[in-house]
Amino acid sequence: MAQMMKAAIFVEPGRIEIAEKPIPDVGPNDALIKITTTTICGTDVHILKGEYPVEKGLTVGHEPVGTIVKLGSAVKGYQEGQRVIAGAICPDFNSYAAQDGAPSQDGSYLVASGRCGCHGYKLTAGWRFGNLIDGTQAEYVLVPDAAGNLAPVPDGLTDEQVLMCPDIMSTGFVGAENANIKIGDTVVVIAQGPIGLCATAGAKLRGATTIIAVDGNDERLAVAKKLGADVTLNFRNVDVVDEVLKITGGKGADSAIEALGLQSTFEQAMRCIKPGGTLSSLGVYSSDLKIPLGPFGAGLGDHKINTALCPGGKERLRRLMNVIESGRVDLKPLVTHERKLDDIVEAYDLFANQRDGVLKIAIKP
Amino acid sequence: MAQMMKAAIFVEPGRIEIAEKPIPDVGPNDALIKITTTTICGTDVHILKGEYPVEKGLTVGHEPVGTIVKLGSAVKGYQEGQRVIAGAICPDFNSYAAQDGAPSQDGSYLVASGRCGCHGYKLTAGWRFGNLIDGTQAEYVLVPDAAGNLAPVPDGLTDEQVLMCPDIMSTGFVGAENANIKIGDTVVVIAQGPIGLCATAGAKLRGATTIIAVDGNDERLAVAKKLGADVTLNFRNVDVVDEVLKITGGKGADSAIEALGLQSTFEQAMRCIKPGGTLSSLGVYSSDLKIPLGPFGAGLGDHKINTALCPGGKERLRRLMNVIESGRVDLKPLVTHERKLDDIVEAYDLFANQRDGVLKIAIKP
Amino acid sequence: MAQMMKAAIFVEPGRIEIAEKPIPDVGPNDALIKITTTTICGTDVHILKGEYPVEKGLTVGHEPVGTIVKLGSAVKGYQEGQRVIAGAICPDFNSYAAQDGAPSQDGSYLVASGRCGCHGYKLTAGWRFGNLIDGTQAEYVLVPDAAGNLAPVPDGLTDEQVLMCPDIMSTGFVGAENANIKIGDTVVVIAQGPIGLCATAGAKLRGATTIIAVDGNDERLAVAKKLGADVTLNFRNVDVVDEVLKITGGKGADSAIEALGLQSTFEQAMRCIKPGGTLSSLGVYSSDLKIPLGPFGAGLGDHKINTALCPGGKERLRRLMNVIESGRVDLKPLVTHERKLDDIVEAYDLFANQRDGVLKIAIKP
Amino acid sequence: MAQMMKAAIFVEPGRIEIAEKPIPDVGPNDALIKITTTTICGTDVHILKGEYPVEKGLTVGHEPVGTIVKLGSAVKGYQEGQRVIAGAICPDFNSYAAQDGAPSQDGSYLVASGRCGCHGYKLTAGWRFGNLIDGTQAEYVLVPDAAGNLAPVPDGLTDEQVLMCPDIMSTGFVGAENANIKIGDTVVVIAQGPIGLCATAGAKLRGATTIIAVDGNDERLAVAKKLGADVTLNFRNVDVVDEVLKITGGKGADSAIEALGLQSTFEQAMRCIKPGGTLSSLGVYSSDLKIPLGPFGAGLGDHKINTALCPGGKERLRRLMNVIESGRVDLKPLVTHERKLDDIVEAYDLFANQRDGVLKIAIKP
Repeated sequence: MAQMMKAAIFVEPGRIEIAEKPIPDVGPNDALIKITTTTICGTDVHILKGEYPVEKGLTVGHEPVGTIVKLGSAVKGYQEGQRVIAGAICPDFNSYAAQDGAPSQDGSYLVASGRCGCHGYKLTAGWRFGNLIDGTQAEYVLVPDAAGNLAPVPDGLTDEQVLMCPDIMSTGFVGAENANIKIGDTVVVIAQGPIGLCATAGAKLRGATTIIAVDGNDERLAVAKKLGADVTLNFRNVDVVDEVLKITGGKGADSAIEALGLQSTFEQAMRCIKPGGTLSSLGVYSSDLKIPLGPFGAGLGDHKINTALCPGGKERLRRLMNVIESGRVDLKPLVTHERKLDDIVEAYDLFANQRDGVLKIAIKP
Repeated sequence: MAQMMKAAIFVEPGRIEIAEKPIPDVGPNDALIKITTTTICGTDVHILKGEYPVEKGLTVGHEPVGTIVKLGSAVKGYQEGQRVIAGAICPDFNSYAAQDGAPSQDGSYLVASGRCGCHGYKLTAGWRFGNLIDGTQAEYVLVPDAAGNLAPVPDGLTDEQVLMCPDIMSTGFVGAENANIKIGDTVVVIAQGPIGLCATAGAKLRGATTIIAVDGNDERLAVAKKLGADVTLNFRNVDVVDEVLKITGGKGADSAIEALGLQSTFEQAMRCIKPGGTLSSLGVYSSDLKIPLGPFGAGLGDHKINTALCPGGKERLRRLMNVIESGRVDLKPLVTHERKLDDIVEAYDLFANQRDGVLKIAIKP
Repeated sequence: MAQMMKAAIFVEPGRIEIAEKPIPDVGPNDALIKITTTTICGTDVHILKGEYPVEKGLTVGHEPVGTIVKLGSAVKGYQEGQRVIAGAICPDFNSYAAQDGAPSQDGSYLVASGRCGCHGYKLTAGWRFGNLIDGTQAEYVLVPDAAGNLAPVPDGLTDEQVLMCPDIMSTGFVGAENANIKIGDTVVVIAQGPIGLCATAGAKLRGATTIIAVDGNDERLAVAKKLGADVTLNFRNVDVVDEVLKITGGKGADSAIEALGLQSTFEQAMRCIKPGGTLSSLGVYSSDLKIPLGPFGAGLGDHKINTALCPGGKERLRRLMNVIESGRVDLKPLVTHERKLDDIVEAYDLFANQRDGVLKIAIKP
Repeated sequence: MAQMMKAAIFVEPGRIEIAEKPIPDVGPNDALIKITTTTICGTDVHILKGEYPVEKGLTVGHEPVGTIVKLGSAVKGYQEGQRVIAGAICPDFNSYAAQDGAPSQDGSYLVASGRCGCHGYKLTAGWRFGNLIDGTQAEYVLVPDAAGNLAPVPDGLTDEQVLMCPDIMSTGFVGAENANIKIGDTVVVIAQGPIGLCATAGAKLRGATTIIAVDGNDERLAVAKKLGADVTLNFRNVDVVDEVLKITGGKGADSAIEALGLQSTFEQAMRCIKPGGTLSSLGVYSSDLKIPLGPFGAGLGDHKINTALCPGGKERLRRLMNVIESGRVDLKPLVTHERKLDDIVEAYDLFANQRDGVLKIAIKP
């Protein structure tokens, strides 16, 4: 008989609860990981609220830190007992999408054929944990395509140090990578939640020398300063676009990274950038987006708008952990709280309501 | 006393007329060109209708073919009498914008500082002829920053063969260049007016092997076939998005080039592309643009949206004329009519109303 | 007891012979292919001569066209009986190298640690067939990492039409892709053997409009003309560098593709390119290469030198077959001869000595 | 009668001396700059020794910091009295080369037509000061194409703070920019003279997190640590290639920047990089370069070799000064000495013999 484990499952809108589930079987290309630390993401809150639909009974969560318990017969190059992480997005690197430069997007293809105005477009993409398959807020998780997705944690790094790598750091950094940053650039990063903070750190790593961090929360702006912001703007106190134009001598920023997902922040990003500039969007939007005609130069502005889903894979994760290990970026300030898996209902409540200065919560099974 | 010349000037909305104007003086970095052939652009029709504001009395037109009459004292490397073209956009290559990779956008900077919801954003950019300075529908035109903008016409090419280079071909081609085309790509080109036809030709030159040309006019689709389209879709007869998904096995096109400037065509382009794909926009839009949530993957689709203004400069034009000279692309089918400068009022009428199968009209001073 | 098959094996320097071998077992990520057509490559001739060392008894050949006979238990998305090809290079797409943008180079890493002046550097890279594992000049071949490497052949394409895809076309095209070609470029392609001919076709597909093909064999130059060369130079009759400088007005070509692998051709390529230009090398060199100081601008020429190993993977192959299917490029003229597998010894002799106008030989088990 | 000024001129091999020369006249696109600080470069030492030929009587030096004294009639956007710098390389941004992406290389074209084995290749490129026209080791210098090349110094930056921008910093940084650095890369920087030190700082700015600085001088390695090196290797004590392979687990570095210009350092760089890696060369070589076969993977290693000449232009310099102003990089440790222009003979002696821990000398007219 299958052994059982605890897992946080989606029961119905408004209810995520701890339940007992069988520990999954391991196929030839899988790996079974014992979770030592995981966390809650904004997307999980959308799932909790029923705003993003998943199957009832699915284990939620997509940010694993843990230990290999069992390896599939065809998975080479790892040992049981090894400490690993895997990405929020576990691409199938054999897929056409991956070989074509978009590993996160495998599986979107079939879905795309049903896209239309009436019934929408399901955002599966390469995101599997806590979306298409059981996730990481559990004692164990099964990692598919393990040979491409298990990333060994270097000795000397704690769970908390690498907890942002699977999603938050990878997403924030791709925002910076997609912003076409050159040395000496002025970059505006709009919203300084965990992902925006990582985008700020990423913009610094790419050579931006005037990083303008925008938020309405002074505590978050203070963290942004530590992570690389040269200027912070609290949108409650100043007109962000005016300030950016002032700082750049009327020229506009070289790029803006939009890390929230609202019409207003997208539009603000568009208004901040120069002709020829880049808008790098990390937002998950919930309705049609409007591009304002004037700042868009009526389509003649040589603008670039880039969007991204969190990149995954063991090489990506290896690099992110290398950034941590090198000391270039310290993301520990983002892990503000710790809770037991058994207390996850309360942890969701704390996180969803942004109480107590919470940024991210380490969840311990 | 200054010598006089004939020029087509903007009088008031609805009226462009031939008038007498002084032949301009030549500064140290200018060149005076005697126009042998020019043409009318869709933008000129917007000016005529008063939809795009220019100063009263300005000479319109921005597509010059002609002969050097006089060179500024600091302009080296040319001879008077030489046949040349210049771009619709004549960048100042010494500008910060040009050195920063966006030569067409110099001069937008100052304007940008006044951008806001209320009074819009003036689309000057590097476009000067027939916008900020006197244009080409005249006997003579003064080319600013001549050392960077005069492109000698190779012997053996007629005026008609190079007439598309200053604007139509350069714009259509940048649409293809911005589409991130790889060998073997499927590219949808939406609208087959002169610019869309050039985008089709450009997509072929970059290695797309399934080029899907879309229009509502079967004659234009027939020209598209000649210029490189593998498949043509008349949107009056088929659902374009359905066809594209059918052709690509449900995956979506690698990129789409939007060459019209409507909400509906922009949206269609977005619906045609794959996750990870590129929307290359050439449209000049006249109102805020809506990005439909579903096809946009709610912002998680790894999509790229690129816009462009026609690239200019003598090196760009040299390359475009090389394409013509090599025989790779034959754009003569685009020049369907010829009129004298004196008959330009009638020519505007013919062109604006798309009568008689007109694509472009050669105007002869 | 294992069933047996015929295979061309390396016996000793100077001897490749047909032998009986067991048909291999199929692991969970493998696929067994019944070869319908394969061919001989220049590298195979190096193996035959003992210039490139492989294990005795290894089946040679790396260019498979065939039918799926058996699929590994974990290989999804294919059917037995399906016609497929696989690349000369079958990358492990789960490897760090693949995720890091160099799928062909997985496996080179460990070898690299032993590199030194004395004992050299074994060129394994991702090339497995006929190098590290049994190859394709046999009745059957086992494809590793099948989910990423099997590419279904579109209906209507013959074996001969796709026979160049696994190696020759993929290699020639990457030469063009690595040459940083822009529309209107002048590109010199040095040597018009099968790979050079494909580089010529590839340069045309990327938008070069002055393609200068160089060889010493007028028949090959005539094929080059058909595949896209605008100018052909027989190096026996003219000074190639002088001609290129003449054609480009003293400026030099935008790029040169070196498709032979000699010091002299590499150097010629270097001498042909402009300051700021690219040398795209496809050669397999057999001794240290010398970069001539003057043409290299003493290191100040803003030059780029790019090398490549044949790209593999099902998406690459899908695109190459799409190029064939679209009719853009017809490589049938490259398959000049046909032989039975049983006659492979004679086929090697014919091919190695370039008799009878041979370009490539279709080998039929 | 022309006013006179002091200038350091090349008299004959072994002799650079202070002489009187007329202050130059100002053409329409020129600007006359009163030098407040300049410096001596390694190239100047080559000129002094007669290893790099220039005309007798030419004023040497190419790194100007000063004040605008007189502007040409066509130079807009500056005021006399303004503090400015100009690049070591002052491109003509109207040239074909500049519009084609290689501004530093204008003027190389004509020279290229004479290139051959016997009489070499004159390295003029876009380098004019102290090479083709009078240079900066003087009281005044005439800046050609001033509208593209004069970069105003931000208030609050001293001469010493911006003295590295015209050449050393721009060159070192382009070495990093050409190394295709991604976040998390391992980069080896070979030689930690002034340019190598800037390459180290540049690699950090681009996101490398394991920067390995190599030199034989421990003092320079200590400066490298301050500028971003994670690991320093003194080649007198360790085998550099072995160490790099050890640090990278046998894989090799993602890229290496060669900042010296010897066969041995070039080769070491080649041996350090992974298959698929980049060798970014900043060296000025003095004889044919040899690429070692093994580390080059016989041409099959997917390697990239990029060379560069110092980028110039006002936008480039604006960005570099922005880096300084932001505090990201502090290059004051590179200016170790100060001398009067009158004492330049002694300054050359000090610099050429690397006495007294000299890195760069501020020269004050």
